[in-house]
Amino acid sequence: MADGKISLGRYMWERIHQIGVETIFGVPGDFNLQFLDAIWEVEGLKWVGNQNELNAAYAADGYARIKNTPGCLVTTHGVGELSALNGIAGSMSENVKIIHIVGQTTRAMQKGHMMIHHSIGKQPDHQIYNKASAGLRVAAAELWDIDAAPGEIDRVLRECMIKSGPVYIFLPLDLSAEQVDARLLNMPIDIEPHVDEKAQEDAVKAILEAIAESKHPTVLVDGLVQRFDAAREAGQLVRKLGVPFFSATMGKGVVDEADEMFVGVWNGEVSSPGVKEAAKEADLVVTLGYIQCDTNSAGFSRKLEEGKTLHINPHDVVVKGKSYPDTSIKPLLAALVLSLPSPPQHSISKPQLPPPRTPLDAEAKHLTQSWLWPQLEAFIRPGDVVVSETGTSNFGICDVTFPANVRLVTQIYYGSIGFATAATLGADIARREVESSERSVSGDSGKEGGEVKEGRTILITGDGSMALTIQEIGTMIKADSKVIVFVLNNEGYTVERLIWGARQPYNDIVPHNYSHLLPLYQHPSPSNSFHSANTKSGLTDILQKPGLKHPQNVQLVELVLDKMDTSWKLGTQLAWRSEAHREYLTSEGFVDTYGGWGLEGEAGGSVKWS
Amino acid sequence: MADGKISLGRYMWERIHQIGVETIFGVPGDFNLQFLDAIWEVEGLKWVGNQNELNAAYAADGYARIKNTPGCLVTTHGVGELSALNGIAGSMSENVKIIHIVGQTTRAMQKGHMMIHHSIGKQPDHQIYNKASAGLRVAAAELWDIDAAPGEIDRVLRECMIKSGPVYIFLPLDLSAEQVDARLLNMPIDIEPHVDEKAQEDAVKAILEAIAESKHPTVLVDGLVQRFDAAREAGQLVRKLGVPFFSATMGKGVVDEADEMFVGVWNGEVSSPGVKEAAKEADLVVTLGYIQCDTNSAGFSRKLEEGKTLHINPHDVVVKGKSYPDTSIKPLLAALVLSLPSPPQHSISKPQLPPPRTPLDAEAKHLTQSWLWPQLEAFIRPGDVVVSETGTSNFGICDVTFPANVRLVTQIYYGSIGFATAATLGADIARREVESSERSVSGDSGKEGGEVKEGRTILITGDGSMALTIQEIGTMIKADSKVIVFVLNNEGYTVERLIWGARQPYNDIVPHNYSHLLPLYQHPSPSNSFHSANTKSGLTDILQKPGLKHPQNVQLVELVLDKMDTSWKLGTQLAWRSEAHREYLTSEGFVDTYGGWGLEGEAGGSVKWS
Repeated sequence: MADGKISLGRYMWERIHQIGVETIFGVPGDFNLQFLDAIWEVEGLKWVGNQNELNAAYAADGYARIKNTPGCLVTTHGVGELSALNGIAGSMSENVKIIHIVGQTTRAMQKGHMMIHHSIGKQPDHQIYNKASAGLRVAAAELWDIDAAPGEIDRVLRECMIKSGPVYIFLPLDLSAEQVDARLLNMPIDIEPHVDEKAQEDAVKAILEAIAESKHPTVLVDGLVQRFDAAREAGQLVRKLGVPFFSATMGKGVVDEADEMFVGVWNGEVSSPGVKEAAKEADLVVTLGYIQCDTNSAGFSRKLEEGKTLHINPHDVVVKGKSYPDTSIKPLLAALVLSLPSPPQHSISKPQLPPPRTPLDAEAKHLTQSWLWPQLEAFIRPGDVVVSETGTSNFGICDVTFPANVRLVTQIYYGSIGFATAATLGADIARREVESSERSVSGDSGKEGGEVKEGRTILITGDGSMALTIQEIGTMIKADSKVIVFVLNNEGYTVERLIWGARQPYNDIVPHNYSHLLPLYQHPSPSNSFHSANTKSGLTDILQKPGLKHPQNVQLVELVLDKMDTSWKLGTQLAWRSEAHREYLTSEGFVDTYGGWGLEGEAGGSVKWS
Repeated sequence: MADGKISLGRYMWERIHQIGVETIFGVPGDFNLQFLDAIWEVEGLKWVGNQNELNAAYAADGYARIKNTPGCLVTTHGVGELSALNGIAGSMSENVKIIHIVGQTTRAMQKGHMMIHHSIGKQPDHQIYNKASAGLRVAAAELWDIDAAPGEIDRVLRECMIKSGPVYIFLPLDLSAEQVDARLLNMPIDIEPHVDEKAQEDAVKAILEAIAESKHPTVLVDGLVQRFDAAREAGQLVRKLGVPFFSATMGKGVVDEADEMFVGVWNGEVSSPGVKEAAKEADLVVTLGYIQCDTNSAGFSRKLEEGKTLHINPHDVVVKGKSYPDTSIKPLLAALVLSLPSPPQHSISKPQLPPPRTPLDAEAKHLTQSWLWPQLEAFIRPGDVVVSETGTSNFGICDVTFPANVRLVTQIYYGSIGFATAATLGADIARREVESSERSVSGDSGKEGGEVKEGRTILITGDGSMALTIQEIGTMIKADSKVIVFVLNNEGYTVERLIWGARQPYNDIVPHNYSHLLPLYQHPSPSNSFHSANTKSGLTDILQKPGLKHPQNVQLVELVLDKMDTSWKLGTQLAWRSEAHREYLTSEGFVDTYGGWGLEGEAGGSVKWS
């Protein structure tokens, strides 16, 4: 970038591109059109329009999680920004980096309190929508003055990176066209956390001491590791420690599950057989980026004793109740890895879990959840991105162990249904960008021994959830995506049926004939790309198809399941609540995969510490 | 309703039903399921689930506009309520009565700041989402205490009616199950405005004087008349005055356009030939429920001189700049009608407008916007409800004169695209309820001389807008709706192309093959119910089909139009902005229906005052 003048709109896009963003999501509107043009002025930046703003927010979120940069979306004043708000709140809840640019009415319209469309009242306050998102973002640039604007943009981009959450840029349309000095672009934005060396030293020392004192330490990897870009350091840590480690559901796949010391997803009382018991052997649990919400702890059933726990959080460390503030997880973990002794202090072998249990419906010919998830485990390959929806899918996916280098996108804490479908669009674009960039760095052609070295993006969702954001399947097709969509067609909101109202009409949804979804959006080869299975053998055949192994365009696989069938983990978690709920599940006729709602001890045998 | 105890949930539904609501929209979630059950305990109340929450808010809005009661929707904590927020803001902007019930986490979860799914942070404030809607509602009941709850519910239902806007009921799940005294239901909620007799007398006197002093008064009917339930009184007023009257776009159809003194939609500089000139003859304009926003005044080009204007607003009257506060439009108009002299003081004949102009593309065989709207005019029948979308449709519909008893639903001020499709679901359910209630009052079987005396619900939308909320077509099919959907397929956001970026990729949308839309949602007879026209003769044939005259289920009519074609009013309004924009329209190749962008004087001749 040289000298001269550029528009503020161009400046903003250049800055966003500088921190790694390559795709802008959103919906055009008459208060952002002019500065959308400037996207095409930035080399390497592209526009992917969404079918609505909520979907754009979800897509940007999915993009951020895979790309490890912020996701960025543009909306228009009021109508657009509010439609996106639930997606933004989800990013806030889950610490996902988002830049939400809102094209606002001109400053003259605002000063004059003019009754411009999208406003409220006779003397409208055009900033009223800005207030709606105030509690749901980590920072906002309310741009007004051209001299201050570049600095404000830089400030919120830094905040986005450091705090890992959504930031807003409110950009009045007229301001976007004003000129700023292009040389401002020559100084990169400082997006790294500033390390307080003393605080970090103290924390590292306390951690090293606690680990040295313990006989059987273990590590629990969780989601904030990914959000604060510390996955690599977390992996180094567990390998250098050399002790068995676990993940919480939100941390699933953040450190490779193919790692030799990985035990399993530790889901409290709803863990797979042996996992909870193995975890309980530890006299010190080192959590990394822990999120102790109900849906990430099997209803708070994974209980950590303060005296046996060491939390390494994004911005502090807590060692057995004592707090070490002002740290930053990524540099802290890096420092910790350097300080750990080598070879490791502890020699703890990986526990051998009992063999898989046999589900009561193992002999069924029709498609069952107990059979489904192991098939998906076999289907997933290294390099794949898996997106899993709130509901049945998120419980089922916990039973799937990933091969190396599989990344999972799921919104366990915020849990907004509809998220997964639209997030998949963003995750897929990000995966392709990351692969393309890795190839250009390595000079790789993308092929290795004739085999395409390319991951796939796999969405697993339910019919009820997909209905909320179904139109984004159309955007995938337009964006030349090759996503594989598994949709569990079980006639409605099965997750809610298990909670309440098993057979109430409110848990029924609009029935779909999915064979028409791809052609609705002018898929180039719809009949070859739609697959439906209601039997085990039917799905086996589908999963063998070359079109699914190496998809050439969007693939849609309908999984027809009984509406009272679900993954055992969901049933078990609810049964664990109370005897009354256990009776409810039984009397309503839900499928009890292993009998006794999975609470009857370890049917498959006990843990062995070889 | 007798004595005994009922749940608070039941109490709430009974109260909502008492003020006329028969259908509840929404999406179930685990913090509202239990009290949804109580809907079935209320005789005459029913549930219609939507495919997502934004659609539910739009549907409730459409329902309210036709039913003349509030529309009601239920969502769940956070994820649901925020998704609906843009729809609620639209109801706030347009003064539509909405009851938004949010099922919240239990009080124990809230007090404990528990990390329950849908929350934000480590010590979540469960009321954070409540704050997001604070500026976008007229009242809220934040229920917490069982003794206060019934009174709070009653209070906000009254506020909803009096202020005509959205209200929230935040209902913690556990509280909904607590018991209240059923006898509370015996005292009806006071939902009528309280009239300040002195203030009303003063205002009526001033109005009568101003009218008596004027030589040529006229009336301009606008949207707030409908919102404050004063359409009947407004009709009585114009008939008793006996002077020519006009409507603004937002007031279109509020008083029958078949009324003998109705002149036309007065759209400032973008009025149909003769209308603006006829309006300018007046020395006094009496506005009823006026909304002076850009989109309701052809970009502020309808200018009213204060010294010649008398505004009858919802809560005050302004006579030539002098304000008379504390009135209420419905009782005030009723009092005014009683006080007006009979026979009328003025004898002003209705002006004769010039004959329709001939569009430059009149000879085209392909479907054009200039030809389309007159066909729709011929198609619309008394009793129909017409829903028109922001964009091209809202400009075209202004050229359609309605027969008697046609109600128009459109969101001109707030202008959120996607509104119309989902609002149509609600409007259709409301139309059917109103007709059914009228029949049961009159003992009518619904037939008269063998002809079904039933209106139709007609949606007119564009491909770009419908994409945002397309899944609500599925809800229509499930709800046994017989809506006729006209979708203008012009390859994207044509309204935006006219504003900026005529051929920019951001104005292109995902292409649709609409023949798959009805079968996707398991329409019972999809091939007979889908129609597509790209020629004038093709559409002529379609509009003659019995299936469209008396639809038996959802009908979808695709209108294939050139992407640079639009209604002349939209082009003219934009051309009116500046010479530069006129050049833009010409150079980009938009269809200039009458030449000179409709600004070249009155091509069709001048107004005659017979």
